[in-house]
Amino acid sequence: MTDTLPTLAILGGTGAEGSGLGFRWAHAGYPVILGSRSAERAQEGAAELNKLLGRDLVRGMDNLSAAKEAQIVIVTVPYSAQKPTISDVASALDGKILVDVTVPLVPPKVNRVQLPAEGSAVEAIQHMLGAGVKVVSAFQNVSAHHLKDLSHTVECDVLVAGDDIPSREIVIELANAVGLRGIHAGPLCNSVVAEALTSVLISINQRYKIPGAGIRITGLPGQD
Amino acid sequence: MTDTLPTLAILGGTGAEGSGLGFRWAHAGYPVILGSRSAERAQEGAAELNKLLGRDLVRGMDNLSAAKEAQIVIVTVPYSAQKPTISDVASALDGKILVDVTVPLVPPKVNRVQLPAEGSAVEAIQHMLGAGVKVVSAFQNVSAHHLKDLSHTVECDVLVAGDDIPSREIVIELANAVGLRGIHAGPLCNSVVAEALTSVLISINQRYKIPGAGIRITGLPGQD
Repeated sequence: MTDTLPTLAILGGTGAEGSGLGFRWAHAGYPVILGSRSAERAQEGAAELNKLLGRDLVRGMDNLSAAKEAQIVIVTVPYSAQKPTISDVASALDGKILVDVTVPLVPPKVNRVQLPAEGSAVEAIQHMLGAGVKVVSAFQNVSAHHLKDLSHTVECDVLVAGDDIPSREIVIELANAVGLRGIHAGPLCNSVVAEALTSVLISINQRYKIPGAGIRITGLPGQD
Repeated sequence: MTDTLPTLAILGGTGAEGSGLGFRWAHAGYPVILGSRSAERAQEGAAELNKLLGRDLVRGMDNLSAAKEAQIVIVTVPYSAQKPTISDVASALDGKILVDVTVPLVPPKVNRVQLPAEGSAVEAIQHMLGAGVKVVSAFQNVSAHHLKDLSHTVECDVLVAGDDIPSREIVIELANAVGLRGIHAGPLCNSVVAEALTSVLISINQRYKIPGAGIRITGLPGQD
């Protein structure tokens, strides 16, 4: 990474997860663009974040314009919108990192793991985009619940899976920049864990009546 | 559970994971039988544990005899031995709880998630045994590394998945009895997470040069 922080486009950036992460990244100094199918909705979402931030740090654009302006493109859309959203911006992704946050939940039973037949949802995206785009899987397990409350430390590790290790390292920096802890989780196929884990965390939230279960990896150096 | 602790049979009980768990359960007061294809090997494994325990608490038998004597049968064999081992003892399982610890690793790339086509490995077992056996998935993510060192707290939560909730609760007690923390992870299909997570933990062990990464669920009541 250079001294200048990369510009982040968050597609589906008006949803709870996307706007929550965008809020934290903007607060950490990253240039953030919220993307949405509608430029107007994206601008409204950006205005809300800027109000919370007390400064005009976030912009809003349609998804394609957002992807064009960014060095790193983050996708936080529902599973059903994953392929069409990424397909629409594919022309703007060459040579960039695409961070896929998609969780393949199948409503209504979102507390049951129901992975796609091909394994992980993100591998289908890497296959669709080809090797010119560095696809990295991350952030699926971060509950949106407390992201916009800066007084609240979000207690969750981020499993970062991807076939290109330098790209993984950049995404780990993105996690660390907002007080999460990014961890190398191996090749892209290992995304299965993060994609499936969200259903288990939802199941735990329901059974134990808590708002946002997360995970920590134990046994790492420097850990209590 | 009654006041008398149930007898546990650990099939594949001479391996690192099975004997480590058996050691901890015996130390916690459970009657433990190690099972193996060879009764002699099982008896040797039991003798080793009894030496460590300083008391004759553990017995060794062939897998079928062990399963017959136990109320709860725990399977800790390599993936390739899972179906034949369980098939061999199926006649002794009716009305019992079968705890499947199997991780569907595919050597040599055990740090890559390579789940069976049907999803989780444990669902195939439930299907094979039918509804008369309560199949519960647990303990896949507990590193064997420190199990036989009682001075070492094993820092790992145990995701417990199963379709029968009372059986899950009994397995959660088994985890809690040895200082782990059992957590309801939802229906049996959610076992995918624990089965796949082991490859991610192996990948983390390799990259961060640590002996036994584990997981903690965050956000639960009573947690720091």
